[in-house]
Amino acid sequence: MKLQFKLEETDKKTRARLGTITYQGKTYETPMFMPVGTNATVKTLAPEELKAMHSGIILANTYHLWLRPGEDIVSAAGGLHKFMNYDGPILTDSGGFQVFSLAKPKDITEEGVYFKNHLNGDKLFLTPEKSIAIQNKLDSDIAMSFDECPPATADHAYLKQSIERTIRWAERGKKVHSNPNQMLFGIVQGGPHYDLRKYSALETVKLDFDGYSIGGVANDHESKEDMYKAFAYSTEFLPEDKLRYAMGIGEPIDIIEGVIRGIDLFDCVSPTRLARHGHAHTWHGNINVKNNKYKDMFKPIEEGCNCYACKHYTLAYIRHLIVAKETFGARLLSIHNINFLYRLMAEIRKNIKNNTLLEFRDQFQEDFYGVKNEKN
Amino acid sequence: MKLQFKLEETDKKTRARLGTITYQGKTYETPMFMPVGTNATVKTLAPEELKAMHSGIILANTYHLWLRPGEDIVSAAGGLHKFMNYDGPILTDSGGFQVFSLAKPKDITEEGVYFKNHLNGDKLFLTPEKSIAIQNKLDSDIAMSFDECPPATADHAYLKQSIERTIRWAERGKKVHSNPNQMLFGIVQGGPHYDLRKYSALETVKLDFDGYSIGGVANDHESKEDMYKAFAYSTEFLPEDKLRYAMGIGEPIDIIEGVIRGIDLFDCVSPTRLARHGHAHTWHGNINVKNNKYKDMFKPIEEGCNCYACKHYTLAYIRHLIVAKETFGARLLSIHNINFLYRLMAEIRKNIKNNTLLEFRDQFQEDFYGVKNEKN
Repeated sequence: MKLQFKLEETDKKTRARLGTITYQGKTYETPMFMPVGTNATVKTLAPEELKAMHSGIILANTYHLWLRPGEDIVSAAGGLHKFMNYDGPILTDSGGFQVFSLAKPKDITEEGVYFKNHLNGDKLFLTPEKSIAIQNKLDSDIAMSFDECPPATADHAYLKQSIERTIRWAERGKKVHSNPNQMLFGIVQGGPHYDLRKYSALETVKLDFDGYSIGGVANDHESKEDMYKAFAYSTEFLPEDKLRYAMGIGEPIDIIEGVIRGIDLFDCVSPTRLARHGHAHTWHGNINVKNNKYKDMFKPIEEGCNCYACKHYTLAYIRHLIVAKETFGARLLSIHNINFLYRLMAEIRKNIKNNTLLEFRDQFQEDFYGVKNEKN
Repeated sequence: MKLQFKLEETDKKTRARLGTITYQGKTYETPMFMPVGTNATVKTLAPEELKAMHSGIILANTYHLWLRPGEDIVSAAGGLHKFMNYDGPILTDSGGFQVFSLAKPKDITEEGVYFKNHLNGDKLFLTPEKSIAIQNKLDSDIAMSFDECPPATADHAYLKQSIERTIRWAERGKKVHSNPNQMLFGIVQGGPHYDLRKYSALETVKLDFDGYSIGGVANDHESKEDMYKAFAYSTEFLPEDKLRYAMGIGEPIDIIEGVIRGIDLFDCVSPTRLARHGHAHTWHGNINVKNNKYKDMFKPIEEGCNCYACKHYTLAYIRHLIVAKETFGARLLSIHNINFLYRLMAEIRKNIKNNTLLEFRDQFQEDFYGVKNEKN
């Protein structure tokens, strides 16, 4: 059965929403952060470690799994859940973002995109129909429409034309979507432009998807303001009763600003990528665990943190592991960073309930980034 | 309090022994395999994963911890157990093996060894006293005397002179050993030569250590027979009531042959190193999980295996992780391989009890290596 979303409550002062996702008899709360398991594994972690942190949806990347091990193998394994031993909800992207970023597209046509396999240079061709067929086989719980991902800084005329194609691609994908247990989301594009976001949202909503993603927000923005505009200009035209997902957003302040503008779901590789580089989220900003000052710091990364890493290990030990390139170090920091974002989401939800989200945003900005937020 | 060893039973047909180790109120059985946690972490694993497999002693490397993070930091953390969150017994080596293998010694003198730090090229000097002082601070439960590790193929005259120095070094180390909760082992050297092993064992035993290691067996042998001779020639002259430890031995048949010749403890990096290279132990030999034939093998590494990897994941998934260079793959194989050696030790102990160890050896040889054992 498809995952069910229910809008529970809307903030009085902002567009923030509280919702619940019901899946296989379990209930999860939104707004939610979704860790990324590119190759059907959230890097360094076991599913049990995620579940111990009360994980909800996790992501897997269609492009990567298409190339390796191939969707037919995942399907023969019984789908992604069985393959990777995760019984919580799984979302797959469309492959579009990777095609446009990793794989250096050769040629975008109306039919689809020709590009090079980033692993071996082979010529490949991805179409909206193919992306959906792969995701149907992967058997994720939420699939994405195949979209073009132009840079947010592309000119207005190009973005308009790209959106029109993305809408045609969304329609083509929806036609062939055939997994009755899988939600299919449409994707809103349009850079920081009000008219384009409005057009993209309204036209995509006409196609009636199970939920809507805000694309083109994770990179190449002129400024944070442009990113936040893209959130607001998109959600303004999206139905209240459907999930809204900001793709690739993991910076804490961006998550908060996204929630304020009515977004429910966020994903990013940042917590695990930061971990591999020895960085840890704390409520007073990110720290570089490799810093020499931590070499004899026999305290957890953050006092009071309830994660496995903070309960059992000191900064001195984790620093030692990271410096010695021991993967258990990246694992401990991955746990800590994902748990941090889960705690951030819990704080956000609590503050929506209390109608104090804007005050929370301002306080977080000051605590985490050491600067006061001047704008609204 | 020091770890306690009790010899429980001796095989009637071989020198194999059953014993128990009591430590912090818990009892562990010997013969035992000890996984290696070079940098105070068994690569890719959490202590809880080891304990779920009923781990006993684990190793940590004095040389590595001396260089990084330094014994003073481990000591300030409260010792190795607290530092790495492992409450089972921990054994440290003397640093000697690494000095002679990794660090390219510049000069061996009566006082100690001058050599280069393999990380940054700094000149360093390690003496028997320094090795013991470091291990005292690391606060392992079993420390090793500092020995010279000449290749087993060195000539008889050199080995004799080296043994004499190693005995003087053992005596010097014992004099300064000052951790009342830590056992100190002497080390028997002598290559494959009966007279040298006898001399080394008898002279080392005169110094009255808490246990004895068989050194110079892990590499540079002309043949397996020479390794097995080194086991037998050493244990012949060691007291029955003390632990005997064959250093660096992890190949399954070598462990069995070592037990037959009266050895209680074995350690090796092999299960985790094999894992990182995508190899798995099975009762029918090692397999290369990267092999294309496993790409759609939706079965565990080995049917009936009780490890976490085999209970939850297929060969197809683990192969995918290894091919995609995801560390969760190395982690799953590390668990499987360590668990395999633990199961091997349990089988060995069962066969000692049943007086069927030689038959077990022959059957294992045939099953694992596909060859019948012609010799005794």
